[in-house]
Amino acid sequence: MVDTIVSSATKEIAIGFERPFCVIGERINPTGRKLLAAEMAAGDFSRVESDARAQVEAGATMLDVNAGIPLADEPAILAQSIKLVQSITDVPLSIDSSIVEALEAGLAVYQGKALVNSVTGEEERLEVVLPLIKKYGAAVVAISNDETGISEDPDVRFEVAKKIVERAADFGISRADVVVDPLVMPVGALNRAGHSAMRLIRRLRDELGVNTTCGASNISFGLPNRHALNASFLSMAIGSGMTSAIMNPLHAEEMAGVMGADVMMGHDPECRRWIKRFREPAAEGQDALGARGGRERRRRRA
Amino acid sequence: MVDTIVSSATKEIAIGFERPFCVIGERINPTGRKLLAAEMAAGDFSRVESDARAQVEAGATMLDVNAGIPLADEPAILAQSIKLVQSITDVPLSIDSSIVEALEAGLAVYQGKALVNSVTGEEERLEVVLPLIKKYGAAVVAISNDETGISEDPDVRFEVAKKIVERAADFGISRADVVVDPLVMPVGALNRAGHSAMRLIRRLRDELGVNTTCGASNISFGLPNRHALNASFLSMAIGSGMTSAIMNPLHAEEMAGVMGADVMMGHDPECRRWIKRFREPAAEGQDALGARGGRERRRRRA
Repeated sequence: MVDTIVSSATKEIAIGFERPFCVIGERINPTGRKLLAAEMAAGDFSRVESDARAQVEAGATMLDVNAGIPLADEPAILAQSIKLVQSITDVPLSIDSSIVEALEAGLAVYQGKALVNSVTGEEERLEVVLPLIKKYGAAVVAISNDETGISEDPDVRFEVAKKIVERAADFGISRADVVVDPLVMPVGALNRAGHSAMRLIRRLRDELGVNTTCGASNISFGLPNRHALNASFLSMAIGSGMTSAIMNPLHAEEMAGVMGADVMMGHDPECRRWIKRFREPAAEGQDALGARGGRERRRRRA
Repeated sequence: MVDTIVSSATKEIAIGFERPFCVIGERINPTGRKLLAAEMAAGDFSRVESDARAQVEAGATMLDVNAGIPLADEPAILAQSIKLVQSITDVPLSIDSSIVEALEAGLAVYQGKALVNSVTGEEERLEVVLPLIKKYGAAVVAISNDETGISEDPDVRFEVAKKIVERAADFGISRADVVVDPLVMPVGALNRAGHSAMRLIRRLRDELGVNTTCGASNISFGLPNRHALNASFLSMAIGSGMTSAIMNPLHAEEMAGVMGADVMMGHDPECRRWIKRFREPAAEGQDALGARGGRERRRRRA
């Protein structure tokens, strides 16, 4: 079984098939958050700080940090954000940018072993990002698209992922340090998107032996009751072998979907994390475990 | 792919790998419901009627009908309940009893092709229940325990299921008419229960080619926040190939877990059922699909 090890200065996390699911908090990202973007551009990182604390408190295993603000000095802002977040939390970070200089600026200040988000299968990207990963001893998210775009065929996406793993090996980066993002499409636009994602995640696990991640909420784009649909998706994807996701840990339904899946996978010994999170004070005459149990359906077995 | 066909006088349902999940409403069961038991024993079926209507309205594909009341005339009460339920709904029924005379009384009055719940792998049960299934042309729930009890080893349970399928064939009952219950254990007592269930469900599908069902809420017995845990279990079990469950369709979280899984499996074309159930009235300046979407996380792909 392959473990992807990431760390902060003081804490190490393993992402792996036999590990609790790794929740990568997505909130520190100015894309689509005008207020946060304006504040970060102006050097005000108070919301970055509160978002970091809130996500860790809600159960994030790692935090993604993105500073993609148009016309701003992204490398400097990303480095500053990373330093700040590392000063107030001990979870490992995912350094998220499409600009190589920003990734390098982030890696240069990062304490520990980071996850870099991301590289694609485009040759031009592989040749600039992979050397950085090797230089800083990081792990990397590999997105399964290339020069030809994002294929709707999961088998083509599998081949792109395989190519990235092989190219990483050429640069001396082990398969354990490549976390594949199979690219989850909105099921409202593409009816087979969920099914394709499950199949691809299973192949990536069984045939390529790599850990996986995804932007989980993409699946429900454009549909109502997104939290419940995301929760179903997360539970099923974990059942298919997905080991991490970039998601919002402040959403209770999604977190319950992840934690429930950990219980089902046998990755929550004695259901301790589930019980700790959801236990209610014992009611009169009931023990704590039974308090919310309600009527049990007893099927008589002949 | 194997379809299990069940029917009422006017409606046919197929349970199968390429079908929407079959929700078998569990509410019409006096076990643990003292008031219902007393009413049914006294010939008052008003609650049976309201439970039937409510479950169908909530989305039940079928209804389970059980009349197991200590010291009462179970065959007569079961037959009467079935006649009543068939007079007010058109969904196919599961005739649920551990008493063979009650099963026969139910089958004798049933209009259509029923699902009989259940037979175990005990030789003595097989020899009395299977001839009834054949005589009435019904389908049957096969519970994977036998004279030796319920094994904790999923491979032993698989072998018991296989034996029942083979014995059914001896009686001229096709594999399509045997729906295996793999026996889901409480994960709070047995940490591997979820994992074992998934593995067994997948084997039953891939190797034995049978449809499956279970008492879904057993998984969460004794734990807090049971609805969310049941929902995770249902989503994951459907992902592993489970095709029906005996469950409470009045529980919104579990139903969302089932419907979300149908979306992910590609069994909800254009997400029509999901949208119909969860769509909110369009807000000003938003279209209906986007109304609950919130901020979309846009990941920039380099």
